[in-house]
Amino acid sequence: MAAPGIAGIKALVFDVFGTCVDWRGSIAREAEAAARKIGVALDGAAFADAWRANYQPSMERVRGGAREWTILDVLHRETLEALKPRFGLAALDAAASDDLNRAWHRLDPWPDTVGGLARLKRQFVISTLSNGNTALLVNMAKRAGLPWDCVLGAEAFQRYKPQPEVYLGAASLLGLRPEAVMMVAAHNGDLAAAQALGLRTAFVLRPTEHGPGQKTDLRPAGDWDFTARDFSDLADQLRV
Amino acid sequence: MAAPGIAGIKALVFDVFGTCVDWRGSIAREAEAAARKIGVALDGAAFADAWRANYQPSMERVRGGAREWTILDVLHRETLEALKPRFGLAALDAAASDDLNRAWHRLDPWPDTVGGLARLKRQFVISTLSNGNTALLVNMAKRAGLPWDCVLGAEAFQRYKPQPEVYLGAASLLGLRPEAVMMVAAHNGDLAAAQALGLRTAFVLRPTEHGPGQKTDLRPAGDWDFTARDFSDLADQLRV
Repeated sequence: MAAPGIAGIKALVFDVFGTCVDWRGSIAREAEAAARKIGVALDGAAFADAWRANYQPSMERVRGGAREWTILDVLHRETLEALKPRFGLAALDAAASDDLNRAWHRLDPWPDTVGGLARLKRQFVISTLSNGNTALLVNMAKRAGLPWDCVLGAEAFQRYKPQPEVYLGAASLLGLRPEAVMMVAAHNGDLAAAQALGLRTAFVLRPTEHGPGQKTDLRPAGDWDFTARDFSDLADQLRV
Repeated sequence: MAAPGIAGIKALVFDVFGTCVDWRGSIAREAEAAARKIGVALDGAAFADAWRANYQPSMERVRGGAREWTILDVLHRETLEALKPRFGLAALDAAASDDLNRAWHRLDPWPDTVGGLARLKRQFVISTLSNGNTALLVNMAKRAGLPWDCVLGAEAFQRYKPQPEVYLGAASLLGLRPEAVMMVAAHNGDLAAAQALGLRTAFVLRPTEHGPGQKTDLRPAGDWDFTARDFSDLADQLRV
């Protein structure tokens, strides 16, 4: 299939964790600072990886119906609690743990994110399409200066990506047919789910999302409409 | 009750039609232009008033359960169709009618709206809380430069204000207790519903929303936390 053009694309919806923001570096830094306050020397990157490792399993129980709808802030907090002993953080009290949990609201954007989004916003409706809860996404955007037109995600639909209600629900709320919406993500799996439902797809390389030894999502694994080095490159390709 | 202070307010949620934008003047202008194209001299203000007069009745059928969930774009379009003969617009074809219906996506802000919101956004999360559907609100914001942090409204909850799910659902999505959220509206009824659920309230005067002979909402009819002449005055009172 020849790559379709830009014609007809009205909205870009973005995966957030990893695609827009560097969760690993941000969480590592905040976790090390929190540990330091209680006199613990923490390997922040290993801690961030462990926290994130329970991301999919914790959502999978909700997706499968083993657990009723639960927002990501709560899933994150439970995982943190479970990890504390393993990383020597048993002395981290409830208030400090709550604050560290909210580090997910304070993730730093990649260097190209804010400028790239500002360019893309000139031509397209730009929205999140994330498994993060709304408050997390709103707080993150305000701190980082992410200029969303709209904040959409799992919570509005009480489903977690890649469940189809999230992608189709976003198109519906934006008043658009799926083919007028392009999913932008650094993850082939997210794009595959979107493409199967008729959305367009843009793969953005984030080769250090998981650190220097990253092995996944280093290249496009599907016939995506666009593949870009970063958001500036995507804006170039979309001619904005 | 003494007026509570600012302490603890984290988010401001705004009624949109009338509070942020001048629907009457905008619709009058667009309707006159559409009529002119088919050779009809229309009283745009009378037409706008007639269109808006069916706003509450059309939502009331949805609220009461006589009709399943239906977005405002559809309710507006049906009202327009019903009004066409009465205003000599029977010759307005489907494409022109669809375009005129989308005039509700192109309403102009009051002169103080954009600057006031920009100030308020420095200190608070600012969101819509409107009966408009999401696409309408997003398109309006993009055209008018309304700098929302978040676009919330009836559609996300499939309920129309003043149904409580809309106010409480917004607080929940923002991760806040009702008392940390302040409803900003030019309509006493909207504020009464919000206050009964524990939200704070700010009344903003829009004495010409319904034209020069406006008789409703010319003064605060409740014990609201703030009463302001416009968004600049509200920003002054909130010290941002």
